Amino acid sequence: MPVNLTAPDPESLSPVPGVTLGVAAANIRKPNRKDLVVVRFDDGANVAGVFTQNRFCAAPVVVAREHLSMLAPDVSIRALIVNTGNANAGTGTDGLAHARRTCAAAAALLGCMPAQVLPFSTGVIMEPLPVDRIVAGLPKCIDDLRADQWLDAAYAIMTTDTLPKAASRQVKIGAGVITVTGIAKGAGMIHPDMATMLGFVATDARVSRPLLKAAAVYAAKHSFNCISVDGDTSTNDAFMLIASNQASMNELNDARSPDFIAVRDAVTQVAIQLAQAIVRDGEGATKFITIRVEGGRNADECRKIGFAIAHSPLVKTAFFASDPNLGRILAAIGYAGVADLDVVALELYLDEVLVARHGGRHPEYRESDGQRVMQQSEITVRVVLNRGDESTTLWTCDLSHDYVSINADYRS
Amino acid sequence: MPVNLTAPDPESLSPVPGVTLGVAAANIRKPNRKDLVVVRFDDGANVAGVFTQNRFCAAPVVVAREHLSMLAPDVSIRALIVNTGNANAGTGTDGLAHARRTCAAAAALLGCMPAQVLPFSTGVIMEPLPVDRIVAGLPKCIDDLRADQWLDAAYAIMTTDTLPKAASRQVKIGAGVITVTGIAKGAGMIHPDMATMLGFVATDARVSRPLLKAAAVYAAKHSFNCISVDGDTSTNDAFMLIASNQASMNELNDARSPDFIAVRDAVTQVAIQLAQAIVRDGEGATKFITIRVEGGRNADECRKIGFAIAHSPLVKTAFFASDPNLGRILAAIGYAGVADLDVVALELYLDEVLVARHGGRHPEYRESDGQRVMQQSEITVRVVLNRGDESTTLWTCDLSHDYVSINADYRS
Repeated sequence: MPVNLTAPDPESLSPVPGVTLGVAAANIRKPNRKDLVVVRFDDGANVAGVFTQNRFCAAPVVVAREHLSMLAPDVSIRALIVNTGNANAGTGTDGLAHARRTCAAAAALLGCMPAQVLPFSTGVIMEPLPVDRIVAGLPKCIDDLRADQWLDAAYAIMTTDTLPKAASRQVKIGAGVITVTGIAKGAGMIHPDMATMLGFVATDARVSRPLLKAAAVYAAKHSFNCISVDGDTSTNDAFMLIASNQASMNELNDARSPDFIAVRDAVTQVAIQLAQAIVRDGEGATKFITIRVEGGRNADECRKIGFAIAHSPLVKTAFFASDPNLGRILAAIGYAGVADLDVVALELYLDEVLVARHGGRHPEYRESDGQRVMQQSEITVRVVLNRGDESTTLWTCDLSHDYVSINADYRS
Repeated sequence: MPVNLTAPDPESLSPVPGVTLGVAAANIRKPNRKDLVVVRFDDGANVAGVFTQNRFCAAPVVVAREHLSMLAPDVSIRALIVNTGNANAGTGTDGLAHARRTCAAAAALLGCMPAQVLPFSTGVIMEPLPVDRIVAGLPKCIDDLRADQWLDAAYAIMTTDTLPKAASRQVKIGAGVITVTGIAKGAGMIHPDMATMLGFVATDARVSRPLLKAAAVYAAKHSFNCISVDGDTSTNDAFMLIASNQASMNELNDARSPDFIAVRDAVTQVAIQLAQAIVRDGEGATKFITIRVEGGRNADECRKIGFAIAHSPLVKTAFFASDPNLGRILAAIGYAGVADLDVVALELYLDEVLVARHGGRHPEYRESDGQRVMQQSEITVRVVLNRGDESTTLWTCDLSHDYVSINADYRS
């Protein structure tokens, strides 16, 4: 059961002018489930992407990067093709050919060049992509294209997700209102870096290509990268930000302008909502844990300590058991790799409860207070380093029996 | 159930001249279990230690390091005091005082200085050490001192271990035979670095202090550090190597002499047997996995790749399920952090079965072959990088439901 998460109300997801979505059942892995999505853009959209750093990056990632890098200034991306059920990763040269064939088939149907189409895949690794079934499914997706199908697309990209993830918000820019709407999928959360994370967020704001890239990097840094370790990403992870450029406004091309910052922040808020939904629906999750590390000398040491806590199976099983076995958190802080950390100077809080200070348990800490917080479904772990002004916030979940069940049974 | 591990036959554990062991039930955490050990050395022993790098290192680690560092050339360590049930970690200045009081009490009973005693603790973190009960238990341990109680001591240092770990071997040096006997305890194996690992190995060989330290570092590097990440150790990890110096031989003081290498290698073999026993008894383990990374440019990249595989919960749950979902191994290799890794050049084997090559599944690989290997209780994952001559071997276990149960219930 996801932690305080429900399927989004389709009415809450505002269409983005210039963007339509179509879904179909292509029988990629399981019969009769919608597993193929086309997201189509009117001519003139800008697209920016943040991709996995995994050396074994999947064929669609290679092809998507290639297509984005070769794009002339007056040529635009016209569609994303997303399939679930098969990741097309660890598939060698055949996998690259399959990803290219998918793009070519979509381009023929949409009347554009193959390089104007970006492919995305998620699912099992190292099995051949059933490209014929994908190609056969594309016309059905294209027949199905509509502006109000964000939720349908969110359902169609799920793998082990139990609920679709989608979010939307609108923000005033000058005299008008721009829309930001997005979908995402996640999966295993114990090391989120190993699960495929796909996120697609679109806005009708007019944003220049360089600024759109900056906004994508900024949003990913404050959302999806706070549930994952930089550079430790899966074979297929991708976050795409699309500006359809259809809003009535001047193109944003100054990174310091309040209008650009408003758009960037709206994108970031949508991305954070999607990233948190991935954690809330983490495999087997029963608790949503916010980890805040404050008072660090730099963001890097805050992230190291936060992720050491977030990735510790001992900490995560203690959360699952609602057991305030908080020494496990101190141990994780200690091995986080911050070589000159003074453990006597730091403080550890569980919500508002001061647990540890001066290198050990706080004299006024009572196990009953820790127990009370641990029983909640949402818990904040706060580490105050008292050695600087930097801070970071990460999100994770607990480690339960269901995590093992889900991952032991994934292919069966 | 541990994987192909049984309790050692007490007859197989040769006493080490100059070393006696005593155990007692001190009621540290649970009534009527033997939870306190004294290992006593005759005057003239040399002791070398390798300790945790955790910044939150436990009070006994601080005190043991301190005592070893202050030792004059003509003064020797006379005893180790080891308790289970409480780690005396995250306990601040009180914890240090408790560790010192333990040493002082043992010293008074043994007729030596407190600095000639080294304390070790394992168990729950961040709870006050019941030092009064430990001090009360010491006379019982000392009354119990005998040369043939290695197995009793191995039982008495267990925490979540299901079986005691002990190993012994003898090796010819010149005209005589020297003995190497040791015990260890382990625990959680998913990130072994977070569990307390204690290892105590003694020999009657005559070894100079600098060479004994070199032998301890060498043995740890090839044994306990191959089931754990360098620098990512728990609050209490310690490996102690003792030379009682009672064998009839000249003192070894040349690092290149065949006799020293023979002693060092015997110590290393005992340490490897203990380290593998820790993995075989890993919490919830059902499979023993050997990970061998070959053909690397340097040992560091081999270890990075090996530990990325060993620590991946997705890989470990696939082993638990006997599911040859081997793309997960490729994904782990890809995010191991070897930036210039050419994934097309490497090969992945499961035992003798070639699974992947040229960036994808090998054309002759059959799922039935992978399935057959995965069903075994002992499996070797071999990654051939084809870019150099270095290699490394690591050991790990799978991730099962029982791991979650054990760690969710540990304190109850």
